[in-house]
Amino acid sequence: MTQQSVEFRTHPSRYRHWRLSVDGQVARLDLDVDEDAGLGDYKLKMNSYDLGVDIELYDAVQRLRFEHPEVGAVLIGSLNDRVFCSGANITMLAESSHALKVNFCKFTNETRFGMEDATRNSGQRYMAAINGTAAGGGYELALACDHIMLVDDGSASVALPEVPLLGVLPGTGGLTRLVDKRNVRRDLADVMCTTEEGIKGKRALDWGVVDELIPGSRFAEETAQRVAEAASGKPSEQGIELRELERTIDGDVISYPHLRVEIDRQGRTATILISGPLRPPPSDPEAATALGDAFWPLAVTRALDDALLHLRVNELEIGTLLFVTEGASDLVLAHDGFVLDHAEHWLMGEIILFLKRTLRRIDVMSRSTIALVEPGSCFVGMLAELVLAADRSYMREGVPEDGASPPASMQLTEMNRGRLPMGNGLSRLATRFWGHADALAAAEEAVGRPLQARDAEALGLVTFALDAIDWEDELRLVLEERASFSPDALTAMEANLRFVGPETMETKIFGRLSAWQNWVFQRPNASGETGALQRYSTGRRPEFDRKRV
Amino acid sequence: MTQQSVEFRTHPSRYRHWRLSVDGQVARLDLDVDEDAGLGDYKLKMNSYDLGVDIELYDAVQRLRFEHPEVGAVLIGSLNDRVFCSGANITMLAESSHALKVNFCKFTNETRFGMEDATRNSGQRYMAAINGTAAGGGYELALACDHIMLVDDGSASVALPEVPLLGVLPGTGGLTRLVDKRNVRRDLADVMCTTEEGIKGKRALDWGVVDELIPGSRFAEETAQRVAEAASGKPSEQGIELRELERTIDGDVISYPHLRVEIDRQGRTATILISGPLRPPPSDPEAATALGDAFWPLAVTRALDDALLHLRVNELEIGTLLFVTEGASDLVLAHDGFVLDHAEHWLMGEIILFLKRTLRRIDVMSRSTIALVEPGSCFVGMLAELVLAADRSYMREGVPEDGASPPASMQLTEMNRGRLPMGNGLSRLATRFWGHADALAAAEEAVGRPLQARDAEALGLVTFALDAIDWEDELRLVLEERASFSPDALTAMEANLRFVGPETMETKIFGRLSAWQNWVFQRPNASGETGALQRYSTGRRPEFDRKRV
Repeated sequence: MTQQSVEFRTHPSRYRHWRLSVDGQVARLDLDVDEDAGLGDYKLKMNSYDLGVDIELYDAVQRLRFEHPEVGAVLIGSLNDRVFCSGANITMLAESSHALKVNFCKFTNETRFGMEDATRNSGQRYMAAINGTAAGGGYELALACDHIMLVDDGSASVALPEVPLLGVLPGTGGLTRLVDKRNVRRDLADVMCTTEEGIKGKRALDWGVVDELIPGSRFAEETAQRVAEAASGKPSEQGIELRELERTIDGDVISYPHLRVEIDRQGRTATILISGPLRPPPSDPEAATALGDAFWPLAVTRALDDALLHLRVNELEIGTLLFVTEGASDLVLAHDGFVLDHAEHWLMGEIILFLKRTLRRIDVMSRSTIALVEPGSCFVGMLAELVLAADRSYMREGVPEDGASPPASMQLTEMNRGRLPMGNGLSRLATRFWGHADALAAAEEAVGRPLQARDAEALGLVTFALDAIDWEDELRLVLEERASFSPDALTAMEANLRFVGPETMETKIFGRLSAWQNWVFQRPNASGETGALQRYSTGRRPEFDRKRV
Repeated sequence: MTQQSVEFRTHPSRYRHWRLSVDGQVARLDLDVDEDAGLGDYKLKMNSYDLGVDIELYDAVQRLRFEHPEVGAVLIGSLNDRVFCSGANITMLAESSHALKVNFCKFTNETRFGMEDATRNSGQRYMAAINGTAAGGGYELALACDHIMLVDDGSASVALPEVPLLGVLPGTGGLTRLVDKRNVRRDLADVMCTTEEGIKGKRALDWGVVDELIPGSRFAEETAQRVAEAASGKPSEQGIELRELERTIDGDVISYPHLRVEIDRQGRTATILISGPLRPPPSDPEAATALGDAFWPLAVTRALDDALLHLRVNELEIGTLLFVTEGASDLVLAHDGFVLDHAEHWLMGEIILFLKRTLRRIDVMSRSTIALVEPGSCFVGMLAELVLAADRSYMREGVPEDGASPPASMQLTEMNRGRLPMGNGLSRLATRFWGHADALAAAEEAVGRPLQARDAEALGLVTFALDAIDWEDELRLVLEERASFSPDALTAMEANLRFVGPETMETKIFGRLSAWQNWVFQRPNASGETGALQRYSTGRRPEFDRKRV
């Protein structure tokens, strides 16, 4: 994968690798990878994928939610006769820098959690129709589906051959989903993950790695029937169009509607400035639906999502993100309340879920995050969640020198009490006060009350309240200090401090599986000159350092 | 740290770094590191430690449990006036191979969990008296205690300076214990972990990083008083002596009472052969106490513990461990039942806890483990746990050719139903059948029933039952295959497959924190020539690759 700028915006009319079709309540997503359309100088043979293929998948999953709320089930299939999907392209992996490998896996994992989120929370059930080989990431894609159908033709198989073939892990959820989602017994999982050719037929069914075997002669018909059954009963709704996200990049400034990113390359920081809405929310959900992607909560979430992805993949040396807001708190509160009041409406529900997923990108982002709560900011409700998501937060005390504007204020709403859970299943508030039920109760009791700096600090909602005299100096020192530390140590530290309390499949995949995979990616046995990734398909066996670590 | 063979057996009379004293119900463990007695060519200045210091600590914690069951509380202190403990020695870390760094951290973590296990389950409460600087691993040592007392003298501080100073993590439990055990708020934890000089006095108390501040003038007196209070009420018991563990190393054979390790260097495997007892258990717990460390369940656990540690640290290229047993199942069952029947007796309780901890070393061991259940073996009760701990297990069908011995048989007992929980808090049986309540119930229903190969396979207790014809070929193939895979990929795969279901502080530390630390250790920003570990105390600043990964 080359280091040119990666673009996350796309549209089904421009897809090179997927065919998206919607027929009533049923959608189909068929993989048909264009081997010449990879992001780098490699051939995407055998329905293998790279980040570009996954960007299209992410786009499709998003569009199905917003543009086709009438869809009740999605069948993931393949247009290749013999291969469902052969997983991440190995030449791509072998050629990628460590940072790109890690970012690729992270985005792929997030997209798969998005499919599971749609299945669980949006009534769009993902099902996999495996018509041939599903290997590595190909089978992991199926694992993200709610129902896995395998053709029983004596040759189609599911496999996780990374360990024997490549010396890396089935790391986009594979190991965790195998034992924690599908409850495959650990010793059988061990056998499967060390069997290059995978397993098929009755054994695959008996071990629980697929849900259903279907003879080849009836495969098309029965998979269509299953997805039609799963889709039935979805309420009929009219979707909205997700138009091309407006974005301009002008030097070190990236502008979206309601969001601007300013990059300070010298200081290795990016300021993400979110602007509140300029007018009150519409009168009812129908009017909001008519606004479509211009409805502020959706527009701002789309911008934030793209900005985070862009910074992650295209701005590797920007180590610290500053969250800043500006605007009228009452208008943010009005939108926040509107979305919550109508949370049963499909679009408001989808917006909350989308915001949840976007905030989770921050939780697993390998950047330090700092929220700055200043006079004129509007960290209330859904935007207050950015303060709670940040590694640290600073709030300015007192009135600004101009005397014209009121002091900084922030406010929690019901939105912060569990509508936007982290990957660990807890609200960021509950995570923050884990083990301190009294402090959590005090914070929740403050819902609806504007809080100035000392109050917010006393409640533990911000790290430090600072007066005007300390503000500039303190922030300068903190940012300089942060920029001076080892980027790796910060990433690892943050990954450990951000998640406390219970664990879920999601926190296990990002916290445990990904950490081990990152370690493996860094090891000479995988990525060294004689490592398994480099030696793959050269006809030469890898040479391993045999020490067990 | 050099690669010479590391010896885990020691005795208080030979300690170089700790002073162990017992006075009635109170024990004191004072750190007084001999800077010239490190395992390698470095000076252990300022009460810093290496693996050798930790081996003594492990020995002391073990001896307090077995030799001094009358002790109700242990005060960890320092004989250095200004430094409690300055953590892992940095020169040692910088000079160590990756494998040794990882093994060092693993053993240190295990020892600290052992202290917490003693506090929780043996009525031996660990308390820390921090009389000066407690930095890095020094503060992590205190974090493993149940109560942390800090002298309030204006200079003593607690610090986790790894990120700013060394570019690595507080990785022997520090980050996890900070937020998950002590429930320090994540943003305050972030501040602490990026503040080189640490925190002290009231802030340390307010943030929850210590439990109590004590003025310098009253420190000795009040800490002594606290530990005496904590210790009171411990029932008076007479301990047993842990004599020097008998071990002979003869070429590739390591022999202990009841256990023999045979190393096959060509095949990179070690066979761990455990022998059952030769006679029935004694009549009552007092008689077992009189046997002391010769009592079979204790003797065999001590041997297994030492063998595992030896293989881990001194035999890095031995990738697969084969668990094999021989002996009379009825005698193993009799001992198993005896220990369980008298589990309320202090010694039987300690033996079960020790076995639990030793089996957990297998769970986090970076080696593939395979149990072989053959005719003449005695995998019953506590020894059946080895089958459940293994990554895979094979059981031989039918009677051996000589016709003289009965077919292979295994048997579960109450011991397997929760007395030996894994780090995730579940029995290995419940872990194995996670998500399959019916299969778990069927296995538990089989408690007390001898099971031959087909039955054990049908119940899911072994991976495969094999007949005599397949046995040799299959095992040869499996071992060859295992030896051919990337050692790193196997380690990472096993770490993910072995733990399903709920997470605990222990699984988080071994699965998440350690994985991230291992990644960081491998990164050039830490361990490269211009990395932070190498540049420490050279007067030159580290040079970092600034990419955030």
